[in-house]
Amino acid sequence: MIHKLIDKIKKTKAPIVVGLDPMLDYIPDHVKKKAFHEFGETLEGAGEAIWQFNKAIIDGTHDLIPAVKPQIAMYEQFGVEGLIAYKKTIDYCKSKDLVIIGDIKRGDIGSTSAAYAVGHLGKVQVGDKSYRGFDEDFATVNPYLGSDGVNPFIDVCKEENKGLFILVKTSNPSSGEFQDQLIDGRPLYELVGEKVAQWGESHMGHDYSYIGAVVGATYPEMGKALRKIMPKTYILVPGYGAQGGKGKDLVHFFNEDGLGAIINSSRGIIAAYKQKEYEHFTAENFADASRQAVIDMIKDIDGALEAGK
Amino acid sequence: MIHKLIDKIKKTKAPIVVGLDPMLDYIPDHVKKKAFHEFGETLEGAGEAIWQFNKAIIDGTHDLIPAVKPQIAMYEQFGVEGLIAYKKTIDYCKSKDLVIIGDIKRGDIGSTSAAYAVGHLGKVQVGDKSYRGFDEDFATVNPYLGSDGVNPFIDVCKEENKGLFILVKTSNPSSGEFQDQLIDGRPLYELVGEKVAQWGESHMGHDYSYIGAVVGATYPEMGKALRKIMPKTYILVPGYGAQGGKGKDLVHFFNEDGLGAIINSSRGIIAAYKQKEYEHFTAENFADASRQAVIDMIKDIDGALEAGK
Repeated sequence: MIHKLIDKIKKTKAPIVVGLDPMLDYIPDHVKKKAFHEFGETLEGAGEAIWQFNKAIIDGTHDLIPAVKPQIAMYEQFGVEGLIAYKKTIDYCKSKDLVIIGDIKRGDIGSTSAAYAVGHLGKVQVGDKSYRGFDEDFATVNPYLGSDGVNPFIDVCKEENKGLFILVKTSNPSSGEFQDQLIDGRPLYELVGEKVAQWGESHMGHDYSYIGAVVGATYPEMGKALRKIMPKTYILVPGYGAQGGKGKDLVHFFNEDGLGAIINSSRGIIAAYKQKEYEHFTAENFADASRQAVIDMIKDIDGALEAGK
Repeated sequence: MIHKLIDKIKKTKAPIVVGLDPMLDYIPDHVKKKAFHEFGETLEGAGEAIWQFNKAIIDGTHDLIPAVKPQIAMYEQFGVEGLIAYKKTIDYCKSKDLVIIGDIKRGDIGSTSAAYAVGHLGKVQVGDKSYRGFDEDFATVNPYLGSDGVNPFIDVCKEENKGLFILVKTSNPSSGEFQDQLIDGRPLYELVGEKVAQWGESHMGHDYSYIGAVVGATYPEMGKALRKIMPKTYILVPGYGAQGGKGKDLVHFFNEDGLGAIINSSRGIIAAYKQKEYEHFTAENFADASRQAVIDMIKDIDGALEAGK
């Protein structure tokens, strides 16, 4: 699956991923109105609104991008009905041949991590039959429990030709509270980064590992250090746009081959129509605004990479 | 909710929680057969088998115990159908007045943690209406992202009178890889423990905080140290029984008031009928075996606490 991701990045010339994190506030009134008319102001109605919103954005952007990253929390907040919308979104993205990074940030002790892994990346056995629960291509994983929390995910990835992005340095302001603590003079996130590089060696693609890392765009200097510690690790970079990261901050997340990083934008793309720059599209044409925001984001990152050469 | 938990622990004299982590392998054939007969060997069939298994165990033990801890991964592995069984289990436990600790180990950046918090502990707004997604009483939370990943959970807990158990030192063998790393001569888990105590000060019950901690039974010495660092923190202790922890190892997790800790057992209770000690109950009467295992666990812990006085 890392091959497919890299092939699609090369083909689209877009090392970006669209974060499908649909807060109800982002969804234009006409979409919500239609869904609520059909299902009422219910969890089912919310699920329908999210799904229709996602579908329009996928239709409007899928030919420009290699991948999407649905954030499961935004669906899970609506309970089972929200997770039905999450699954519909995954299946639809798959039909458009997009790579799907499930932003699930799961992680537990061995047998429990194994259950998450089969549910999201693998197949679960029921009697003589087997089924795929959510069936993303990649999943994000929290490393706090150490190797025996991560290895069950890697085992399923090997079987299924799928991949992970493991949290190393997150984009939020207080990420440093634990992640930046010094251990023998070096921050914890570097230790986690080294471990990710080691885990990655057991499941290599051609040039890059199936086991990637998450490093926030908001910490470009740390990204530079981590790039060196994990040379064969693909880095998923959240925090572009709305969280403050800019194209020029991102150059050092990439390797000299122009690969090795994929930049996520969520709100900046899916709620583009709410920004001054794109408000002329109007809420009615929100998917066109998202398309333009994708084009502009690709240009910003491409420009920064060119200037950095 | 911490009041209710403590009241129920006092009333049942059982500082224990039954982990509802139903692997299909734990479920007796006659339960699976019935479910598969009705729904086929499908995800729906698996969900039905889990739900019927849980229901029988709850019926067989609810008067003896204060709380249950469903592990969401064991449901999530069956996709949406599994999560329907998770929700049914929660609702049924609620009807029996049990305290429900959702073992979800979520944690993300601010707005995303907020979405998990409303989905599991609070209410989500849909137009003019609001709904409860999963509606557990407590949730487990992963602290790797720091305060702004945890605070949105605490905010919802304050509104809803609910609580958390934050991972401090987990029960698995490799938990030390990151959690035991020394920072200025002290392990990371102590730093996290201090932070949990601080977070807890903002949401206090009478003697104990609504914000608890998870510390594995498999590390009794660390439990002793953490008990002192977090005197007003309730400690959820996994790893009893199947993972190796015994009653005598657990004395130091408790305060002198005999409170302050709640011990989880999952496999040891729900799959008791598979153990030599309880096999005379036979698979047909698996819930009676679970009831006896609960009685024996209470005796083991009570005995250890008495001996430790």
